[in-house]
Amino acid sequence: MCSDPAAEKQPPPATRARRMDSIRPFYVMEVLERAFALERAGHPVIHLEVGEPDFPTPAPVVEAGMRALAEGRTRYVQALGLPELRAAIADHYPQTCRPHTDRVVVTPGSSGALQLVFGVLIDPGDEVLLADPGYPCNANFVRLYGGEPVLIPVGPDTDYQLTADLIAQHWSERTKAVLVGTPSNPTGTLIDPIEMAHVTARVAELRGQLVVDEIYHGLAYGDPARSALHDSDEVFVVNSFSKYYGMTGWRIGWMVAPEAFMPDVAKLSQNLFISTSTPAQCAALHAFDTEVIDELERRRQLLQRRRDFLVPALRDLGFKIPVMPQGAFYVYADCSNFSDDSDRFALELLEHTRVGITPGRDFGTYRHHEHVRFSYANTLENLEQAVERLRAFLAS
Amino acid sequence: MCSDPAAEKQPPPATRARRMDSIRPFYVMEVLERAFALERAGHPVIHLEVGEPDFPTPAPVVEAGMRALAEGRTRYVQALGLPELRAAIADHYPQTCRPHTDRVVVTPGSSGALQLVFGVLIDPGDEVLLADPGYPCNANFVRLYGGEPVLIPVGPDTDYQLTADLIAQHWSERTKAVLVGTPSNPTGTLIDPIEMAHVTARVAELRGQLVVDEIYHGLAYGDPARSALHDSDEVFVVNSFSKYYGMTGWRIGWMVAPEAFMPDVAKLSQNLFISTSTPAQCAALHAFDTEVIDELERRRQLLQRRRDFLVPALRDLGFKIPVMPQGAFYVYADCSNFSDDSDRFALELLEHTRVGITPGRDFGTYRHHEHVRFSYANTLENLEQAVERLRAFLAS
Repeated sequence: MCSDPAAEKQPPPATRARRMDSIRPFYVMEVLERAFALERAGHPVIHLEVGEPDFPTPAPVVEAGMRALAEGRTRYVQALGLPELRAAIADHYPQTCRPHTDRVVVTPGSSGALQLVFGVLIDPGDEVLLADPGYPCNANFVRLYGGEPVLIPVGPDTDYQLTADLIAQHWSERTKAVLVGTPSNPTGTLIDPIEMAHVTARVAELRGQLVVDEIYHGLAYGDPARSALHDSDEVFVVNSFSKYYGMTGWRIGWMVAPEAFMPDVAKLSQNLFISTSTPAQCAALHAFDTEVIDELERRRQLLQRRRDFLVPALRDLGFKIPVMPQGAFYVYADCSNFSDDSDRFALELLEHTRVGITPGRDFGTYRHHEHVRFSYANTLENLEQAVERLRAFLAS
Repeated sequence: MCSDPAAEKQPPPATRARRMDSIRPFYVMEVLERAFALERAGHPVIHLEVGEPDFPTPAPVVEAGMRALAEGRTRYVQALGLPELRAAIADHYPQTCRPHTDRVVVTPGSSGALQLVFGVLIDPGDEVLLADPGYPCNANFVRLYGGEPVLIPVGPDTDYQLTADLIAQHWSERTKAVLVGTPSNPTGTLIDPIEMAHVTARVAELRGQLVVDEIYHGLAYGDPARSALHDSDEVFVVNSFSKYYGMTGWRIGWMVAPEAFMPDVAKLSQNLFISTSTPAQCAALHAFDTEVIDELERRRQLLQRRRDFLVPALRDLGFKIPVMPQGAFYVYADCSNFSDDSDRFALELLEHTRVGITPGRDFGTYRHHEHVRFSYANTLENLEQAVERLRAFLAS
């Protein structure tokens, strides 16, 4: 309403929901905004702050998306996903843990999956245990539904992961669920299979619900990551075509849900999403093609070489990285040799070296001022260049 | 876990959230499942139960999507949407109500917009006033966040719409917001501009928040639908590329939010969605092209001809349709001359005539047993055929 002066006299809008006080924006946005401003002013930035692979969507997947569009596959489909995609997702799991197709749900990114998981699970006041540091949206999905995230400090002694003992120690009468991410964002660490079996058993004993974020599966540089579906049919497993399959902007992920929750998952997904992008689903159908997997494997090896360069180089500069990250494309580095204010440190680094990194604050509250996250979803040349710039700056 | 017999011994999963008891699946799914079963058995069904245009996405929009894919536009973009798409959406509004681009938010369908609206607005226990009959997901979005939908019975006397008086009459201390849909699903009726100004003023006086669902804008057969942005900058307006623009399966919509809510909307959309489909946004950029709008105008005229056939034909059969629907592509028909159980009536009709319609139950609780919804998003030939089949059945 541009023209009506009466607008000036209207009362202010209704009050905002209280939950919005506890949901924070991402601080990396400040870094990004400043980085874009520098770039507009003609100063190219090496972006090590982004949580997105630097590889494009594999060509056969893109071509399948284009074919889908050409064929008019632009209508609603089933709320739980195209049956053939649900089957393909089920089939991509090893025989030893393959879920029934009926338990596979295609979602608008793993973000959509987490909305469903916590929507069917969390009553106001319920507590959910999470590792700190961890992916910030996870806690916010819990808050969205009136639940209370309980952030458990984790450090190098447990590979920055929750353990069965930590879970038991923080369990309360109000605890409803536990979320673990393996490989973890921001630490790149995995829960080893033996501990994962303990975690699964302990949560079941405590009559809680285990939710496992496997979004970075496929991107592991030691043994392949092992799905929690090996340990139980009663866990929620969340995954995505974004990271390993290089489909971030398409917004498509999936989850495998315990059978008992499927009626609720089905009706909530009808209501929340109607359906997931049809062209994206048609494209994702080709993400498991042999030629695509071959290409993704080459990319994984490239990422491993980058990690093998970056971690020792950062250690050499004076960052402390006590646990070698085994997956994803992140290094969570202790920067206390340089600063006890990682927010300021990240902005200074950007200003003086044109290297963008993410301050620890985005991943929790435990020692976040002493940590920053580097992403190695960037070329080896850029990583080398970034390290040289950091070396010059930190020595000055 | 297929192979491990220990699975059998696991305790049942955690309890489900209480909200799931109040969120219902869509009953039309039962009709659809039976319709698909009939079709698999070789009995083609005329689908008048679907809420989806029968036209494909306009060719220039599809081509823009294909170009985007070819150019590798498959990465995350800004959480609030591509700046150029936000600007194009703002610009498509008439000069007299054009919002600032900063208030436009691109969302994964209008479903995504409604998640944001109620997420930033509703605290547990807050009431939201809604018309009954109305679109069922609206009430469920309120329930999702612990709010309480208050369904206000509406009938032909108010064109099946809320009025300023009805709103005042149902206002309580706990009322936080009012949602109106114009044109309405399922009734196809609009709120006239004078009443809309009253509604806007009354809700503002009561210090509540008005949310206007304009998803079927563009599909009006009398005067063009007038955006609520004409009356106030302090309303949430939700819209979509799905219906008028024929982009259902792409999952892209938008909203215009009051300025004061934008910081909360921004952080919630970061957390809920990361971003909306990039190829869909690139495609939607061309939805406002002149040649596309010309095509959409031809489609609108076609829909009008179908309405002008179907409404008198249904009345002639004995359905009561007291208000001529002025928009969308729905007829909400009183079937009490034939049945007082519209669930059974819809299934019987499907069984005996192979015509699919939606029972009133999906749209509320007020006289739903005496109503069914017909969609005329189907060819005139099919509509004629459907009417003939109904005539034969209802006369028998």
